[in-house]
Amino acid sequence: MIVGSFAERHIGTDAAAQRTMLDALGYESVDALVEAAVPASIHAAPREGSRIPHAATEAEALGELRRLASRNRVSRSLIGLGYYDTLTPAVIARNVFENPSWYTAYTPYQPEISQGRLEALITFQTMVTDLTGMATAGASMLDESTAVVEGMLLARRASKSASSVFLVDADALPQTIALLRHRAEALGIEVRVVSFDEPEVLPEAFGGFIQYPGASGRVWDPSEAIAAIHAHGGLAVVAADLLAMTLLRSPGSLGADVAVGTTQRFGVPMGFGGPHAGYLAVRAGLERQLPGRLVGVSVDADGRPAYRLSLQTREQHIRREKATSNICTAQVLLAVMAAMYAVYHGPEGLKRIAQGVHAKTALVAGSLRARGVEVLTGHFFDTVQVRVADADAVVSAAAGLGILLRRVDEITVGISIDEVSAADPSIEADLLAVFGAAGEIRAVETPAESPAGSAFTALAAVRMYPDALRRTDAYLTHEVFHAHRSETAMMRYLKTLADRDYALDRGMIPLGSCTMKLNAATEMAAVSWPEFARMHPFAPASDVEGYLELIDQLETWLAEVTGYDAVSVQPNAGSQGELAGLLAIRGYHRSRGDEQRTVCLIPSSAHGTNAASAVLAGMRVVVVACDEAGNVDLDDLRAKIAEHADTLAALMITYPSTHGVYEHEVLAITAAAHEAGGQVYVDGANLNALVGYARLGDLGGDVSHLNLHKTFAIPHGGGGPGVGPVAAKAHLAPFLPSHPMAQRERHPSLTDPEGAIFAGGPISGAPYGSASILPISWAYVRMMGAEGLRQATGSAVLAANYIAARLCEHYPVLYAGENGLVAHECILDLRPLREATGITVDDVAKRLIDYGFHAPTMSFPVAGTLMVEPTESEDLGELERFIEAMIAIKAEADAVAAGEWPAGDNPLVNAPHTAEAIAVGDWQHPYSRERAVYPVRSLVRSKYWPPVRRIDQAYGDRNLVCACPPPSAFA
Amino acid sequence: MIVGSFAERHIGTDAAAQRTMLDALGYESVDALVEAAVPASIHAAPREGSRIPHAATEAEALGELRRLASRNRVSRSLIGLGYYDTLTPAVIARNVFENPSWYTAYTPYQPEISQGRLEALITFQTMVTDLTGMATAGASMLDESTAVVEGMLLARRASKSASSVFLVDADALPQTIALLRHRAEALGIEVRVVSFDEPEVLPEAFGGFIQYPGASGRVWDPSEAIAAIHAHGGLAVVAADLLAMTLLRSPGSLGADVAVGTTQRFGVPMGFGGPHAGYLAVRAGLERQLPGRLVGVSVDADGRPAYRLSLQTREQHIRREKATSNICTAQVLLAVMAAMYAVYHGPEGLKRIAQGVHAKTALVAGSLRARGVEVLTGHFFDTVQVRVADADAVVSAAAGLGILLRRVDEITVGISIDEVSAADPSIEADLLAVFGAAGEIRAVETPAESPAGSAFTALAAVRMYPDALRRTDAYLTHEVFHAHRSETAMMRYLKTLADRDYALDRGMIPLGSCTMKLNAATEMAAVSWPEFARMHPFAPASDVEGYLELIDQLETWLAEVTGYDAVSVQPNAGSQGELAGLLAIRGYHRSRGDEQRTVCLIPSSAHGTNAASAVLAGMRVVVVACDEAGNVDLDDLRAKIAEHADTLAALMITYPSTHGVYEHEVLAITAAAHEAGGQVYVDGANLNALVGYARLGDLGGDVSHLNLHKTFAIPHGGGGPGVGPVAAKAHLAPFLPSHPMAQRERHPSLTDPEGAIFAGGPISGAPYGSASILPISWAYVRMMGAEGLRQATGSAVLAANYIAARLCEHYPVLYAGENGLVAHECILDLRPLREATGITVDDVAKRLIDYGFHAPTMSFPVAGTLMVEPTESEDLGELERFIEAMIAIKAEADAVAAGEWPAGDNPLVNAPHTAEAIAVGDWQHPYSRERAVYPVRSLVRSKYWPPVRRIDQAYGDRNLVCACPPPSAFA
Repeated sequence: MIVGSFAERHIGTDAAAQRTMLDALGYESVDALVEAAVPASIHAAPREGSRIPHAATEAEALGELRRLASRNRVSRSLIGLGYYDTLTPAVIARNVFENPSWYTAYTPYQPEISQGRLEALITFQTMVTDLTGMATAGASMLDESTAVVEGMLLARRASKSASSVFLVDADALPQTIALLRHRAEALGIEVRVVSFDEPEVLPEAFGGFIQYPGASGRVWDPSEAIAAIHAHGGLAVVAADLLAMTLLRSPGSLGADVAVGTTQRFGVPMGFGGPHAGYLAVRAGLERQLPGRLVGVSVDADGRPAYRLSLQTREQHIRREKATSNICTAQVLLAVMAAMYAVYHGPEGLKRIAQGVHAKTALVAGSLRARGVEVLTGHFFDTVQVRVADADAVVSAAAGLGILLRRVDEITVGISIDEVSAADPSIEADLLAVFGAAGEIRAVETPAESPAGSAFTALAAVRMYPDALRRTDAYLTHEVFHAHRSETAMMRYLKTLADRDYALDRGMIPLGSCTMKLNAATEMAAVSWPEFARMHPFAPASDVEGYLELIDQLETWLAEVTGYDAVSVQPNAGSQGELAGLLAIRGYHRSRGDEQRTVCLIPSSAHGTNAASAVLAGMRVVVVACDEAGNVDLDDLRAKIAEHADTLAALMITYPSTHGVYEHEVLAITAAAHEAGGQVYVDGANLNALVGYARLGDLGGDVSHLNLHKTFAIPHGGGGPGVGPVAAKAHLAPFLPSHPMAQRERHPSLTDPEGAIFAGGPISGAPYGSASILPISWAYVRMMGAEGLRQATGSAVLAANYIAARLCEHYPVLYAGENGLVAHECILDLRPLREATGITVDDVAKRLIDYGFHAPTMSFPVAGTLMVEPTESEDLGELERFIEAMIAIKAEADAVAAGEWPAGDNPLVNAPHTAEAIAVGDWQHPYSRERAVYPVRSLVRSKYWPPVRRIDQAYGDRNLVCACPPPSAFA
Repeated sequence: MIVGSFAERHIGTDAAAQRTMLDALGYESVDALVEAAVPASIHAAPREGSRIPHAATEAEALGELRRLASRNRVSRSLIGLGYYDTLTPAVIARNVFENPSWYTAYTPYQPEISQGRLEALITFQTMVTDLTGMATAGASMLDESTAVVEGMLLARRASKSASSVFLVDADALPQTIALLRHRAEALGIEVRVVSFDEPEVLPEAFGGFIQYPGASGRVWDPSEAIAAIHAHGGLAVVAADLLAMTLLRSPGSLGADVAVGTTQRFGVPMGFGGPHAGYLAVRAGLERQLPGRLVGVSVDADGRPAYRLSLQTREQHIRREKATSNICTAQVLLAVMAAMYAVYHGPEGLKRIAQGVHAKTALVAGSLRARGVEVLTGHFFDTVQVRVADADAVVSAAAGLGILLRRVDEITVGISIDEVSAADPSIEADLLAVFGAAGEIRAVETPAESPAGSAFTALAAVRMYPDALRRTDAYLTHEVFHAHRSETAMMRYLKTLADRDYALDRGMIPLGSCTMKLNAATEMAAVSWPEFARMHPFAPASDVEGYLELIDQLETWLAEVTGYDAVSVQPNAGSQGELAGLLAIRGYHRSRGDEQRTVCLIPSSAHGTNAASAVLAGMRVVVVACDEAGNVDLDDLRAKIAEHADTLAALMITYPSTHGVYEHEVLAITAAAHEAGGQVYVDGANLNALVGYARLGDLGGDVSHLNLHKTFAIPHGGGGPGVGPVAAKAHLAPFLPSHPMAQRERHPSLTDPEGAIFAGGPISGAPYGSASILPISWAYVRMMGAEGLRQATGSAVLAANYIAARLCEHYPVLYAGENGLVAHECILDLRPLREATGITVDDVAKRLIDYGFHAPTMSFPVAGTLMVEPTESEDLGELERFIEAMIAIKAEADAVAAGEWPAGDNPLVNAPHTAEAIAVGDWQHPYSRERAVYPVRSLVRSKYWPPVRRIDQAYGDRNLVCACPPPSAFA
């Protein structure tokens, strides 16, 4: 490693540690080890002329980011369209958004050590159900537009109608309409854009989608339209603005079956499009149809309430090709922020903000009308449209004053007020100037001195929407929305929650397939800067040159790393990247007249998401067997290809395989698919085992998605955000995602919205997906350089093999490739242990908590196993601590087998142990309290105390409670 | 409160809570309560025409700060003079500097709940002793220049010489020389500036001060000079640059008795002068002479090693008028950062940085010489001086390229290289251009392509200092400097340390006299911005216009709040502000020919620092008695005034008194002093009980210091930084601190350095002291507005009275003022409890830890009491939790008295209880484990676990160990 380089800080093991580990494994160097593990046929030498620049220091990278930031211009956005400037309370920014205890946590699959964020997420769910008037909400969706798609899919499976028509509000957000068209096409759904103004003439449909308020700003009563949809057996999906819902009747009260939307304006920066938390909520009776994650209340071993993910059997990784949604990663970090924004403001605070926004909108509309400007929108909340002579001239005049307006069409512009512009004392005068200048020339009167506060007070009674739509029922009545109103109280609440959780700042999270590596502080810095945070996704290109340059560079680097020709960063989760890649394959075949090519071959070991995405791309999944070593069974593959030769669309494989092995035959496998006219999809989930040593494109891949939140250092955020760029060879490039509002279009010749069937359509609500966190991966690549990236791979492979070698005499390592080596992870087979001792994978995972660890991946890809991925960021001390813990646990299990402790009462089955559990006066167990909580002495110095004992999973599913329980439940 | 205002977030109790509390006290409103408590004679109505602006929202304040920041220009500073640009490792910036768990902690007077920062501080001490080659170092000084003063004072008391002369290196930093002159004058010390080049002709002196390397950059061997100082019985004080010490022989090895300096360049931003941690270290035998705080190792009740403050009896609050130093607050947060910088880089990393700096300096010097420029400095580390035709022209040409040089005199400029400029690939070419342009015109050759890394390697062997001074001994050998080299490891180490400590993010710290209020995240934001962080204190005024405007505004606001005419923010701690105020009084008297006025009257209840500062201002302390109610005994005051009428210099009082009471007779007291020709010093420590209701100046004060880290929301940082502005009436204004390098001089007519006896001299190393944290107080005042500040006072007084009223039946409230009311704090008398039960203040304080609290102030101002100051930031829930704990503890003590538990074995004397303590198999105590650690049920949800049991204070003083113990000590 270069002395003094960032790579030295990112990689946990230094030269001396690596020497020790290599000696244990019997290799001369890391390169020699990787060369022995990776089949020679795919091994790529370091490339001359790599487009990845030399490694920058942290200071240099920050300097370049500051230069890029300076090329973005922070305007006052009044564009609206689902994205609003917002004031992130500083206490939330500092203590959540910029706090590794929150952003380095993993998805709460180990609920005992995730109670803090699970509590925040159930608060999110409660906030959404209260404001929408629905019965149950999930723990966040990727964004509003994809949530509408999920709503459409939910309607189709829950509706009794046989129709394939889905009605879409003509006044919906344009990006949502584009996304619905693209996604519906693959599934044989006919999207029909309609006006709901005449509900009596609506055609039969399995569902309909209503934007409330409309994209135009119009506030109207959709209950008749909903009734008309119901009349045909369809379900009504309503996208509701949560801030407006503090004043307007909720979709639930209007009869909606599904409510969707975004929580962005609840304190989450626009970030040029994301990440933010979308939401989806349903009426009673549809709970089990919810896509994505759902937090519920269960009980722990002491019968105390405890949170967990409910109804996980609905999820794609369980249902695979029977899945009805492919979403996996949610937007936990952003959902937490939105929920805490509601906690901090409470119902009265949110209502005050909404009233301020509404009053300012009314003030602007009234002032414009008073000066003869034609305001088109009669009833509104925060948005009005204005008729002008020349919309382009008006938009341009506004830009001159640092204001962004929405250009609706040649003669119409939109104005949307938000929390920030509502408090801007000059916005009204500036708008009058803009419209005066562009329309009739008239003197602009400066409004009388009116500090924001007093204007709000005076205008709190303003109501520019129908009286019948005024909200009268209470919301956010739970104590949590009333108890943390001072900054001190809020800071402590956030710390109390963070203290309950285990994240990377405490210790290793060796989750196979999840690559929980360092999220360096320097990588995170730029995300907080206003030049990246406060950008509207539809800002003009001239405002976002820094962003566009950064995205161009990152896409170039990712293409270089993967061996592909084109990359799109639009997919805002791995699952979406996967879907985009499969849709690209679909588009490609159809563009060649091969509509019949719809079969997707997937090995039995694949991630469940693979199959779910294939279904959503309109494909039929055919499973290919794996052999005993975990490799694709070539014979079965050839047989399946032969069987489906004419209809073969794609083969999906993961490399290295989900078994953590570099399959020797990968080139033969991909060639076989190609020979039959199929395309090859290589899942990039395990890219951390390849970067710098082999390239997905060179394996025969035509398209792949990457997980920036795995290989490229974006933090997992406790269960999201994720970013899943899709990368493809040139022939598939035209079918990668496009976006109708993109500032820069890659493939202009193919993006006619009407012709979207042959070109890629949008896969996310925003043109560049979760743009605001791309600086993280940019900084990672920029600071590692090509050589650092390669060293990271080698160090990760070394760590995995070291753990495998050290643990294999205690736990069999299930799969290995050439020379008995694994890739970047290893699967420990615990089935023999269970047979011998009765101790399960679950027991071992929970006992690891007592030892101060997050468990490895459980029972994936093989039931009864643990998959360990240490990553390159762990140092040898931490690896040894984990090895010591695993060996000690094995000894404890052996003691159970030896009869030293009964099978029903031992440190493993009772794990994890809380502090409260050992404080009881009467200790009833056959092992000591010290054994329970301090099985190794180093824990005395630093110990993570789980806040609850083992959680009863079945109880929570049987007794579904998905909103905050009353305080009395904890008494 | 204004709805939606920052004050609503800052103040913990909302209107409903205040109603509840007022009802309990029987008052109609907060104003009515305060009016009943504050004597009518001093009560000030809200002022018309206040110079404090209306309250800004958080967003508005940030916007204004961004505008101010944009008026500062971040140049590349090569000025040197003890301030260097540095790269703060992002992992330290994010996880320490921007983490409330570190910055909201208090001074570690409760060591059991401060083990994290005590460990960091002992690491600091070890770092300093290793690098300086001394035996013992303290836990940080305020800055290098004041540390030199402390070194001088130490030399005087430890020297056997009767001389009053102190020799000062002519090549010392100019600001240090100015400070030494000013401080020495008041103490009758004669500062003689000398060259040490001819040691044989040095006069007798009690000590001498050597700058190593010199301010000019010169590296020379001072051992003969040190020997010459020793020959006269004097002590040698050496200021050593710690980065240079990685390459050069240490002062200890050269014979120094005292080493001083700054640790700023170890990752602490320059911040326009501060705050940074200075250091002071001594050879063996002088340990007990150390001023300030010293961390040592002791043992806890289980005999385990535990850290604590050692030898506290040396400190000013104990020694009072016998004190030899007045320093109190240290620079803990910055010392922690510097120590962690050393931990992260380790000895080899620090040496690499030093070599890079040195090599770049040599490169620049060599290139200049090669082009015929006259470089004056032969042997150097990082600084050279260059002879030029016109220094102003050169400095100006450099400024044009964004480079700041030191103007030494008309024909000499200085160039200092640091960690940042060493890595700047364009600095050499730019410097050549600068000197080419200003001296002989010659073509500037661009140096051959040499990326920083390779240049370092090639030049690592460069050595431009005498071979005899090359360091050969090892340093930073302790494991802590080798164990945390990856960012992941560092992040976890910092979290492990933070987890051991109790700070405001966990709960209330109700420390009487310390005002532990909210440090809001918005207030903290700007401190991290480069426009505030990366400014050299001697940058030209044109570079720091934003800073100067901010300081002007803040000084104006503080003058308005206090009723004074002039304010100086230069003092970088309360003690320094106090000293500056007393020196102003001294200067005033002397300017009027009243040299004999040297008596300072101080009430017996005063802070110990008062007396210590008076001594250091050359005054003689006469103690005035207090009556039973804690008020100044007016009769005794009048008697003492009569006794010292001709020599009376000052009366120092605190208001409200240190007894937490608004004294009724304050106007009579101050009038009595004035009548006798004395000046009145009002200590502003308790200003939080006055702001908006009364003004120090209106009480008769002539001068006061304020504590921005108390009343004005600067965080305590775990024991510093503090900021102690001094405020005065117009007649004292000319005697407030000045500074020879100030960008803007307030009183030019009086600041002739030779005439400094009549004008104020410098009190800190930098013109504006700890300038970089002034945006915190600026933001606090800006967001609170006059009305918010007043509400904060009222809310603080309400909270204190509520606690007093609720607890008085359990613990007598020792003092009360009018209508039985206290001010912002109340003293609970625990002496009756001790008499009745044997339970001590210490037992109660430690038991509070078990209940999840930091103890109130112990035994100050009255032994056997607890002084409780809840501040305005605590909400009613937290106040009630504290009241509940105190009542429960009383009941526990009663149970001891009742014989339920033996006096030697009960939950109080055994407190605090660790988790480890309750995990033992064999519980030997007569109370249960649950009683030990969960005395109230709410602790089950959220519990702070102290990392050690009660610490043996005496053991640590008897067995002084002030460096990191070996890991085996913890086994």
